[in-house]
Amino acid sequence: MAEQLTFPAASAALLEPHLPPTPAHDDARSAAPSRPFVTLTFATSLDSTLSLAPGVRTRLSGPGSKAMTHYLRSRHAAILVGVSTVLADDPALNCRIAGAEARQPRPVVVDPHLRWTPRRGDKVFEVCREAAGLAPFVLAGVDAAEMAPGSVRLLEEHGGKYIRVRHARSGADGRMRFDWPDVLAALSAEGLSSVMVEGGAQVINSLLDPACHVLVDSVIVTIAPTWLGQGGVVVSPDRVRDDQGRPAPAARLSRVSWHPFGEDVVLCGKLHG
Amino acid sequence: MAEQLTFPAASAALLEPHLPPTPAHDDARSAAPSRPFVTLTFATSLDSTLSLAPGVRTRLSGPGSKAMTHYLRSRHAAILVGVSTVLADDPALNCRIAGAEARQPRPVVVDPHLRWTPRRGDKVFEVCREAAGLAPFVLAGVDAAEMAPGSVRLLEEHGGKYIRVRHARSGADGRMRFDWPDVLAALSAEGLSSVMVEGGAQVINSLLDPACHVLVDSVIVTIAPTWLGQGGVVVSPDRVRDDQGRPAPAARLSRVSWHPFGEDVVLCGKLHG
Repeated sequence: MAEQLTFPAASAALLEPHLPPTPAHDDARSAAPSRPFVTLTFATSLDSTLSLAPGVRTRLSGPGSKAMTHYLRSRHAAILVGVSTVLADDPALNCRIAGAEARQPRPVVVDPHLRWTPRRGDKVFEVCREAAGLAPFVLAGVDAAEMAPGSVRLLEEHGGKYIRVRHARSGADGRMRFDWPDVLAALSAEGLSSVMVEGGAQVINSLLDPACHVLVDSVIVTIAPTWLGQGGVVVSPDRVRDDQGRPAPAARLSRVSWHPFGEDVVLCGKLHG
Repeated sequence: MAEQLTFPAASAALLEPHLPPTPAHDDARSAAPSRPFVTLTFATSLDSTLSLAPGVRTRLSGPGSKAMTHYLRSRHAAILVGVSTVLADDPALNCRIAGAEARQPRPVVVDPHLRWTPRRGDKVFEVCREAAGLAPFVLAGVDAAEMAPGSVRLLEEHGGKYIRVRHARSGADGRMRFDWPDVLAALSAEGLSSVMVEGGAQVINSLLDPACHVLVDSVIVTIAPTWLGQGGVVVSPDRVRDDQGRPAPAARLSRVSWHPFGEDVVLCGKLHG
């Protein structure tokens, strides 16, 4: 019997204004919008750190927060993570909230360079075979010819697949990156009407860039009352400057609400008016 | 007429368990403890940043937070800042809460190398001459012979002074630093029974080091719903490692409470059991 989480109805009611309209799943195509409803959600320490070091799983928030994460997953058609998260954590990327069996979110892995080689023993496939989760859609920047046939087969056998996304630009490190509108268009094309963006830091920081605020419908951040200290994996967007070249705040939430939640606090807001 | 701030009694009541016992001022010497009651308090962005860049004053939190800061000042015998804050901000370091005229906190400036040259026009002396604040005690690591006679006179004329503190160690940069027990002993010797430590980042980070947790009685952090972005002045203590050399959380608050406060949240807690 798999672990089952419960999330109090009163807490769910507090989050409701920050969530996509229900029903939010693949079969709800009636009024498909041009892009999915995007919820950006993650948990940090007081020093805005997701984990003590890359690849080090770090228990930050309390058990209530875990239930909240899975409740949020139940309310989105897709959950999206960067490939680093998959490589570091071997996550199940499913929803373990009680009663969610019939409406699992679709895991979406952003993996421009195909750094992830899917393996049969990966948790995301395990839960899939147990009918406790869906197989991932992997957003790839390479041509089909460059995809390993074994990986393609493994994904498809479980109901997942590779989706080719245009790589629009390269970063300072010379690595290709996707533009968010292209990523979201790919999800819309799959009928995914809402997506919960969970991490990691690079994915989160890129959405906090002012150019992307208009794409984000809702932000839900859990903060744990701890300082992880320097050297961790930090959420902090790139430096923004004003017209005179002076440093300026990168992002500010509006329509803010704070909800104490055990020892943690949950912050809800919007990145654009 | 100087600006007067008011702080709601209901908010004050929420903070009360986290504050030093009243009366907390110089004349309350009846039961002098071995060290002052230490409250660590500051305001950050979601990415744990105090300001956009060193020396750049950054409006982070709302007007309610400002009133809270001044209310907290009214509840401490001393307020302590590092010299960088004085050099960057020319702060008044007084209490502008309505009714606080008769019980101003003593400003304490941590300035091992005497980087600050006090000037008559500095705000801290202005408010002093207006009987709206006290002159600072400057904690110095140098001998009296090295102190500029003009600075000594200016301080003493306003009721402040230099206090020589033993410099116990040097940092990686070769600069001398004080140990917190020596700083707090110097305050106790002046009959200051409580101190509100306000910043800047170096002062805060040093108190968040595990070795200092036992010295801190109360932590009050205001968090504003904004990300300032990379390159700012960050609160995050030095890396801590466990017995096996693995990264470990540097600090965790206990007896935590979160208080939404306008758009901000105020976090209260303790660094030691």
